[in-house]
Amino acid sequence: MAIDTPFVELNNGNKMPQVGFGLWKVDNATCADTVYNAIKTGYRLFDGACDYGNEVEAGQGVARAIKDGLVEREDLFIVSKLWNSFHDAEQVEPIVKKQLADWGVDYFDLYYIHFPVSLKYVAPEVRYPPGWFVDGGSKIEHGKASLESTWKALEEVQKKGLAKSIGISNYGGALLLDLFTYATIKPAVLQIEHHPYLVQQDLLTLAKENGIAVTGYSSFGPQSFIECDMKLAADTPLLFDHPVIKKAAEAHGKTPAQVLLRWATQRGVSVIPKSNSQGRLQQNLDVTSFDLTQEEVEEISGLDKNLRFNAPTNYGIPVYNFA
Amino acid sequence: MAIDTPFVELNNGNKMPQVGFGLWKVDNATCADTVYNAIKTGYRLFDGACDYGNEVEAGQGVARAIKDGLVEREDLFIVSKLWNSFHDAEQVEPIVKKQLADWGVDYFDLYYIHFPVSLKYVAPEVRYPPGWFVDGGSKIEHGKASLESTWKALEEVQKKGLAKSIGISNYGGALLLDLFTYATIKPAVLQIEHHPYLVQQDLLTLAKENGIAVTGYSSFGPQSFIECDMKLAADTPLLFDHPVIKKAAEAHGKTPAQVLLRWATQRGVSVIPKSNSQGRLQQNLDVTSFDLTQEEVEEISGLDKNLRFNAPTNYGIPVYNFA
Repeated sequence: MAIDTPFVELNNGNKMPQVGFGLWKVDNATCADTVYNAIKTGYRLFDGACDYGNEVEAGQGVARAIKDGLVEREDLFIVSKLWNSFHDAEQVEPIVKKQLADWGVDYFDLYYIHFPVSLKYVAPEVRYPPGWFVDGGSKIEHGKASLESTWKALEEVQKKGLAKSIGISNYGGALLLDLFTYATIKPAVLQIEHHPYLVQQDLLTLAKENGIAVTGYSSFGPQSFIECDMKLAADTPLLFDHPVIKKAAEAHGKTPAQVLLRWATQRGVSVIPKSNSQGRLQQNLDVTSFDLTQEEVEEISGLDKNLRFNAPTNYGIPVYNFA
Repeated sequence: MAIDTPFVELNNGNKMPQVGFGLWKVDNATCADTVYNAIKTGYRLFDGACDYGNEVEAGQGVARAIKDGLVEREDLFIVSKLWNSFHDAEQVEPIVKKQLADWGVDYFDLYYIHFPVSLKYVAPEVRYPPGWFVDGGSKIEHGKASLESTWKALEEVQKKGLAKSIGISNYGGALLLDLFTYATIKPAVLQIEHHPYLVQQDLLTLAKENGIAVTGYSSFGPQSFIECDMKLAADTPLLFDHPVIKKAAEAHGKTPAQVLLRWATQRGVSVIPKSNSQGRLQQNLDVTSFDLTQEEVEEISGLDKNLRFNAPTNYGIPVYNFA
């Protein structure tokens, strides 16, 4: 009973599913099965990253689905990201190849710079994934790779066919304007935190004017961060319980989660929810079968608080890229 | 009756007055007299910019003060800024020299990148100052100069002695982190919008950790933008009328303006107010003769709304560097 989701055409002609499955915080123990079941349910895009620490298991789920004939590799859209400690140009291709080997595939459909932050290199043999702290403890050591040098290394990754498209994540407007001065390949996709408490209209406008697709993460807002023990998230009213969201959900006979995802896709933002429940997995995928009214979209956008959860400082990590 | 203001020692050993006079929106007709009177009152730092369109007149005020024996050049700290349309490396030195000639001095004490935005070059003969729009009308045309290439051109300006120190303005955390990867001369000063509605603690922390002094502009918040007909400013309660500011002013027998400036300097942020009134000119300079209590500083910081007035989009200019 797979559900077809629509595609977004990227600026290089590639097509990206508008709804995908986000692998952040998916347990290693269940990840392979989760990915397998998601494919069965109809998910085709998987949004992974070195930092999520589950690329091997995600790849096992993919391999089983291909072996069982559920899909072929070309049906899938596999996404990964460059971690901060691999920004040095000479580290980019080797780590992409390691990540491809972990997934058991020979190309990524999309490969992002995860954060606009260069950290000192940590060899995979020493610690993998390396995380924010150079010693695995509490010490941040910034690296020496400029974003330009890292972006140019990503361009090489695309030219070599190791990634069909390349993008940036957690960039704001000024970084994009700077990137446009030096990029020879424009990013295909910008991935950002995006929910009704962080609407970011100006950033969407900038991306749109430049032909860059936008994928939003943490579409449910604080919900995603409560399991990270983040005080800011615990102190913020859940969007699932918000009267504006509940009213729209009741009006359309959908869940609050579906309303939040539909609000995003109607704004032109692709989404990558995750769920451990089969029912919600299916619901989350089925988000384009109804339309919010323009008034509902605007009322939801009106909840904006310019409130960002996924900043390093909110986890107690002294890295100030969102300052 | 000149008042001595304290100095901040920059990371290159130069000393910058902690309180200066900001030349934004100072009328051409009165600018020379204003600068002259400010020097007489005790101001030593003048914060100018190509974009303010009054460097010739500011220089006339300086020249008269020197001629009358009020000060010598070395007593002054003259600041200017590189406009967006001169970011191309080969345009930097010529425009610095033109700006020096306008001021009638042979070096700047500090020269900033005004905004992290490269716009297409407009020759000074065609239009000066050029403003945001390439045609002087409504069309934005972005340039091709990376911030790295522009920063390196500023480093050359400092090496040639055309500026004693160099800095950046309107940069956020991610741009600073990137700059640190390529700068061979670290910026001496970061200039940012800073008032109790835009407290920016994380950005101050980042600057401090990296030995960069911070100068705050628009210390009075919305006040500065009402004369620009900015709706956001008109819709925001004035800080001068805010009960928290008035209470502190009454407690110390000072004006709300003095409280706002002292709040900034106690946070380690230098200030550059302007005033057309001689009385306020003097009051604004006299901001270190009293101390707010730690509780007052924190109560004022608690007014933070993360509310930025001086973003291009707030003027209807479609440039998204603050997105």
